[in-house]
Amino acid sequence: MKYHVDGDLVPVEEASVSVRDRGFRYGDAAFETVRAYGGSIFEWDAHEARLRRTAEQLGFGDVVPDDLRERVRETLAANDCGEAYVRLSVTRGAGMGRLTPAPDVDPTVVIIVEELPRGGLTGESVWDGPATVQTVKTRAVPDAAVPSDAKTHNYLDGILARLELRRAANEAYRADEALVRDAEGNLTEGATSNVFFVDDGTLKTPSTDGPLLDGITRAVVLDLAADEEFPVETGQYTTAAVREADEAFLTNTTWELRPIARADGVAVGDGPITRLLSRLFDERVERAHYE
Amino acid sequence: MKYHVDGDLVPVEEASVSVRDRGFRYGDAAFETVRAYGGSIFEWDAHEARLRRTAEQLGFGDVVPDDLRERVRETLAANDCGEAYVRLSVTRGAGMGRLTPAPDVDPTVVIIVEELPRGGLTGESVWDGPATVQTVKTRAVPDAAVPSDAKTHNYLDGILARLELRRAANEAYRADEALVRDAEGNLTEGATSNVFFVDDGTLKTPSTDGPLLDGITRAVVLDLAADEEFPVETGQYTTAAVREADEAFLTNTTWELRPIARADGVAVGDGPITRLLSRLFDERVERAHYE
Repeated sequence: MKYHVDGDLVPVEEASVSVRDRGFRYGDAAFETVRAYGGSIFEWDAHEARLRRTAEQLGFGDVVPDDLRERVRETLAANDCGEAYVRLSVTRGAGMGRLTPAPDVDPTVVIIVEELPRGGLTGESVWDGPATVQTVKTRAVPDAAVPSDAKTHNYLDGILARLELRRAANEAYRADEALVRDAEGNLTEGATSNVFFVDDGTLKTPSTDGPLLDGITRAVVLDLAADEEFPVETGQYTTAAVREADEAFLTNTTWELRPIARADGVAVGDGPITRLLSRLFDERVERAHYE
Repeated sequence: MKYHVDGDLVPVEEASVSVRDRGFRYGDAAFETVRAYGGSIFEWDAHEARLRRTAEQLGFGDVVPDDLRERVRETLAANDCGEAYVRLSVTRGAGMGRLTPAPDVDPTVVIIVEELPRGGLTGESVWDGPATVQTVKTRAVPDAAVPSDAKTHNYLDGILARLELRRAANEAYRADEALVRDAEGNLTEGATSNVFFVDDGTLKTPSTDGPLLDGITRAVVLDLAADEEFPVETGQYTTAAVREADEAFLTNTTWELRPIARADGVAVGDGPITRLLSRLFDERVERAHYE
């Protein structure tokens, strides 16, 4: 396997960044997780736009290279890999200055890749089974501290949320995704996923007015639901609404749509809307990447 | 210059961490900034205790190596450097797993060093002049999201606070440290410093009940003030209290005590209490490291 580091393809064992890199020292970096299906990248334009938006919010939008897509392609080609998880990071670069960034930024670009199964209609999911989710005590970082629509290398709140799941007394009931809330107690998202649920025929998901990341897969699902003319509502919800839902599922780039089997120990499961949206998602991937 | 990376002393140009390291990918790391005076480390025990506490809060306290002090000593010796800024990081190590940490952690230890002037009574300050500080919009990350007494590689809130200072219309009035507030509007700390001020003869500093890092230099200053039987108060203050103070100063490991010349454009400056505490600090360093 080869990774792409600062313009070069290098073997995984040699793929490294300087210990002076601000991405390492402070998590001062923007990143995206993208998925390649059949050799091309799903929703590239949306991912690139979000990466640029993150870098702008961190104050280095002007130095994000123009050839990111080409670098991702080179990485996939070098690994002869068409079905992949790709993590693309742009950091504020190295420098021994103190916390205040230098005005001139020489960014570091890192692309990590990992093989995944085929997607689309004849593909298989990366997850072994439906998700179990658990409401955690760790709260979302408010927008006033770090903007939630910036996808950065500062991910400790999500890690702390996931670590809470380990403390479940009975391993059999250990959840694999956290339900995170904001300071007011409203559901925001999972540690690495957006949350959807179906309540009396309406598809609901927390509004991006709250401190959550506006997921690319989330947007695709909302688009598919609009095409089907499903009733859709975005708003503020408690985690109890997920427990009481008729159906519920998580979305992210690698999981795509993943049904929620249990929320806080309560059985939820999928249903006709989740299954139809999954099918429509697979069809969209099939058309865009395999036909 | 040589750095200490994962047990080895390596030239700066080769000092790197894997792009798979969680310290890079998520800022999933504990760190300390320590200062060496005359070849030995100031307040080592307090720094090591805090590093271990941070790692415990992140769930990998049990794998922090026992020989950190020895590694710092080796780094100083290899660089023939007795007066130094030292940054010591312990990350949760490399791994391609997803966000949830693997149960077994093989930590990465990185020690960066930089030469500083002598400290103590005949030393010189690392700063060129007193600080100017400015209240910023960026708020502290609440304890409920990431505990503030954990010193980690997630530092974007501090970076965003510092970047706000750049937006000052007139460069001459550009502040060099931010005054950060919590969600309720109370002063917490600077981006990399604790804040003290003197009000009617009483030395005041925000209480660690709020979301702020309990600085080692802060503790030393409180200790010196207690020795002198100065009236001391810790509590909740607005940033207006700093503007209206008789004296004010910042503390951190490299700055030691640094007077605040202006807060939000208002002249504050040092005074007898700041000057005495600075003198007492220098004497303590002199006694502990140069006699």
